[in-house]
Amino acid sequence: MGNNLLQGKRGVIFGALNEMSIAWKVAERAVEEGAKITLSNTPLAVRMGTTNALGEKLNAEIIPADATSVEDLKTVFERSQEVLGGKIDFVLHSIGMSPNVRKKRTYDDLDYEMLNTTLDISAVSFHKMIQTAKKMDAIEEGGSILALSYVAAQRTFFGYNDMADAKSLLESIARSFGYIYGREKNVRVNTISQSPTMTTAGSGVKGIENLYDFANKMSPLGNASADECADYCIVMFSDLTKKVTMQNLFHDGGFSNMGMSLRAMNQYEKGLDDYKDEHGKIIYG
Amino acid sequence: MGNNLLQGKRGVIFGALNEMSIAWKVAERAVEEGAKITLSNTPLAVRMGTTNALGEKLNAEIIPADATSVEDLKTVFERSQEVLGGKIDFVLHSIGMSPNVRKKRTYDDLDYEMLNTTLDISAVSFHKMIQTAKKMDAIEEGGSILALSYVAAQRTFFGYNDMADAKSLLESIARSFGYIYGREKNVRVNTISQSPTMTTAGSGVKGIENLYDFANKMSPLGNASADECADYCIVMFSDLTKKVTMQNLFHDGGFSNMGMSLRAMNQYEKGLDDYKDEHGKIIYG
Amino acid sequence: MGNNLLQGKRGVIFGALNEMSIAWKVAERAVEEGAKITLSNTPLAVRMGTTNALGEKLNAEIIPADATSVEDLKTVFERSQEVLGGKIDFVLHSIGMSPNVRKKRTYDDLDYEMLNTTLDISAVSFHKMIQTAKKMDAIEEGGSILALSYVAAQRTFFGYNDMADAKSLLESIARSFGYIYGREKNVRVNTISQSPTMTTAGSGVKGIENLYDFANKMSPLGNASADECADYCIVMFSDLTKKVTMQNLFHDGGFSNMGMSLRAMNQYEKGLDDYKDEHGKIIYG
Amino acid sequence: MGNNLLQGKRGVIFGALNEMSIAWKVAERAVEEGAKITLSNTPLAVRMGTTNALGEKLNAEIIPADATSVEDLKTVFERSQEVLGGKIDFVLHSIGMSPNVRKKRTYDDLDYEMLNTTLDISAVSFHKMIQTAKKMDAIEEGGSILALSYVAAQRTFFGYNDMADAKSLLESIARSFGYIYGREKNVRVNTISQSPTMTTAGSGVKGIENLYDFANKMSPLGNASADECADYCIVMFSDLTKKVTMQNLFHDGGFSNMGMSLRAMNQYEKGLDDYKDEHGKIIYG
Repeated sequence: MGNNLLQGKRGVIFGALNEMSIAWKVAERAVEEGAKITLSNTPLAVRMGTTNALGEKLNAEIIPADATSVEDLKTVFERSQEVLGGKIDFVLHSIGMSPNVRKKRTYDDLDYEMLNTTLDISAVSFHKMIQTAKKMDAIEEGGSILALSYVAAQRTFFGYNDMADAKSLLESIARSFGYIYGREKNVRVNTISQSPTMTTAGSGVKGIENLYDFANKMSPLGNASADECADYCIVMFSDLTKKVTMQNLFHDGGFSNMGMSLRAMNQYEKGLDDYKDEHGKIIYG
Repeated sequence: MGNNLLQGKRGVIFGALNEMSIAWKVAERAVEEGAKITLSNTPLAVRMGTTNALGEKLNAEIIPADATSVEDLKTVFERSQEVLGGKIDFVLHSIGMSPNVRKKRTYDDLDYEMLNTTLDISAVSFHKMIQTAKKMDAIEEGGSILALSYVAAQRTFFGYNDMADAKSLLESIARSFGYIYGREKNVRVNTISQSPTMTTAGSGVKGIENLYDFANKMSPLGNASADECADYCIVMFSDLTKKVTMQNLFHDGGFSNMGMSLRAMNQYEKGLDDYKDEHGKIIYG
Repeated sequence: MGNNLLQGKRGVIFGALNEMSIAWKVAERAVEEGAKITLSNTPLAVRMGTTNALGEKLNAEIIPADATSVEDLKTVFERSQEVLGGKIDFVLHSIGMSPNVRKKRTYDDLDYEMLNTTLDISAVSFHKMIQTAKKMDAIEEGGSILALSYVAAQRTFFGYNDMADAKSLLESIARSFGYIYGREKNVRVNTISQSPTMTTAGSGVKGIENLYDFANKMSPLGNASADECADYCIVMFSDLTKKVTMQNLFHDGGFSNMGMSLRAMNQYEKGLDDYKDEHGKIIYG
Repeated sequence: MGNNLLQGKRGVIFGALNEMSIAWKVAERAVEEGAKITLSNTPLAVRMGTTNALGEKLNAEIIPADATSVEDLKTVFERSQEVLGGKIDFVLHSIGMSPNVRKKRTYDDLDYEMLNTTLDISAVSFHKMIQTAKKMDAIEEGGSILALSYVAAQRTFFGYNDMADAKSLLESIARSFGYIYGREKNVRVNTISQSPTMTTAGSGVKGIENLYDFANKMSPLGNASADECADYCIVMFSDLTKKVTMQNLFHDGGFSNMGMSLRAMNQYEKGLDDYKDEHGKIIYG
């Protein structure tokens, strides 16, 4: 019941771990819209997750790869072109991980080897992906490359830690390469800055549940779901957005441009009760 | 040969003057995607332009209205609901005019009556449109409202004059009303910031040809055309972007995030020749 | 005990109502830093407030004026140059008022006459001020013009209403005129986007106390006070910032670049208790 | 002839190579304003440049250090506190280098070891500097930490290459650490985004002369000089800006908010002549 928006297009989707993954939803929707795709994830994720089931369901080959390895990426684009029968029209990068977050290192106690890994996996891998594809001339003229980002690239959220810096770097890479690949092959490169989403990755972020609630109450339309994000990715892969490039597109129910909503403030006020004196006046600590 | 993206939807399109108008292209594409629409423009524009021909072609009723008149806007939404058989799913505001620009008043010699008119026609009319529709409950739950803007809202372009201020105001109204209408009816409100376009309105801007060339050479994908803008509007009216609101979406081939392209600089350098001394060194004046 | 940062400079300060006013603090600090100044406010404010006391204390002439009247503004700059003995080096615009807010008209029920007044008083007055001064050649080469703004120009805060749109317009005027006046006379034009401040004007905003608390807890340095804002204004009037123009400068303890702080979230969580089920799980409504 | 803005303050300045360096000018101005400072640069730079002469002139100890080495940074802050007699009030990070740029690797042919070095030297070093200082509690309550950036962090400039990504990362680190260090010790962290400057580092950038000319003609106040940048740094180190944090402050004569100036367009148009046909109409290629 799609709209044939990707009829005849070939795509490579990185980062579909399980049914909760945004990349998983994008893969399903892409096929529904008429595309043929391959899937890639780390060998470990392929073993641990349920990517294989998705591959079978969508008739999509799975190509295990470490996205920080140029060699592996080369394999992905070589094999994808063989399997799909031509150059690639769209690519999704849905990859991010911070060992510092996992090991509960705070931002003022970062391990620099780990920071290096955070940046390499979550941001530089996007550059490697594009550079590798470009050197192989693997992307079709007018193709579309997307990565998923988060508003922490612009504004600081406690606990998001070095992932914020990685997302800033990621968005910068999208701009820098968007210029190069655009002028030479009309390939567009963008990021979608998505609401906090209850994926396996998202669930790992400290205090995500409360942040999710806050974002939801701040956003006039509420948080955007993984399914809705998939719809937006389809749009960005389609030929209807051929002149959109180097952009970071907020897909967040309005959160990014909210300062304070009535709903979030009502919630916030409840917590303020303790701070009122006997006359009902707020005491600022 | 559309994708049925607006199947069964009802729309109102303001500002289609003639075949060059972006609003004209949007009207055509909306119908192609399955929508039923009405068209509105000022009584003068309806007489002077070729809106009637468009109406006939698209089987769309034309409802003349001054978009700064709440009464007229009420008529548009009343009549549109009658003609289209229900609440409105999408609205396009493609309206802008500056008497100061027309009368060649420079920005440091503005006539304040005229400035008032610039703001009223080009920005406040958007508020009036939304407020009127909301009071009548004329917009369908989950509907989409769009206005066309320009990057002059963020950055100063010589000669764009008080239209820059009007566009800033317009984008602010989109945010402010996006919050209100989103939280109450899930209606989204956005602006699309379009490349300089050779429409009848665009052609009136001072030095537009050279600016057009500069923007084109700066943008890795070149300037976005009116046709491409129509595609992007369709996307924003469709159900695939239901969580995008309060945003200003650049549709400009990458211009907004460019500082300087090689192509534009090559052009620029040619003009620099005069400024080189006999040793080929550039002389800064 | 100043630093002689404005030694020998002449300034005009609009909007000092009483001791809580930011403009009042700026006036005091400007004189402390060696400037001679005049003060201007509406005739009504001059009568109602305590501007006269400030004038006496600072030996500053008070020139009543309606800042929306070009005639009145002309008088201010004429008289100021006479009294101060030369062209003006710096100007502060600290003016804003919304009849819609006062009359508790919500944003989806604006009175358009009132909106016009909001824009005229809070934003267009800034243009009138600069245009009038420029036509009279009243500003010294290299002078500095400032207006006070608020982050609602970028992000929506419930209840801030049409003042948000006015602030967007104000900031756009700063950019537009900053270009013109900069290229011709090296005069710089900027806005300072200040924390919510408990001035007489600020206190009128709906729910300001809770918003003040939220902003304070979100900002790593807490809210900026009126005194601190005055310091920042001095800096922007001084010769140490001669190449800063067309900018909106956030003076807010970091608020503008915060997404969520631990402190604000702790507060927010307290209000969430009601929403937990018997197992302590949060229920999203 | 300063204003005693840094009277009694202690500072550490990284990156003064020679008289053209912004850091050099900042060092001179800081001392002029009453501060005591130490200087740090790489051992190689200390040998190659004229840092020693500056140290003698300003009576400032030079502490050679590799800013990517946590050990070396520890030494800098230990020794600085000893020499200056207490905690540090301000720090300048003026460090950046890209081996990819030096080796003329284009952005679509980056060497990833080199990219790693670019990010480590130009951005991560800022994190290391702050984390090291914070762990040692070496920064005075209310202190000020600054790094120098460039608008390429927001917009793409051909030839700026992976330095653009490094600057984005740098600005993100300023935000992220500004939150942490602000809430705990009221230490503020900001970046200044400076005009292209004809320093030894700046001169290495491809096509810098033409870019310099373009930026100069685009900016209503012209490019900001290294001396003027030093003034702005002083302001940001002083107690007059105590509530400014997590900001990227443009110091660029207005460039960042310009879309196109008349002056730059006049220059650009000259280069367009070739593209006009015999009727004087512009031909778009």
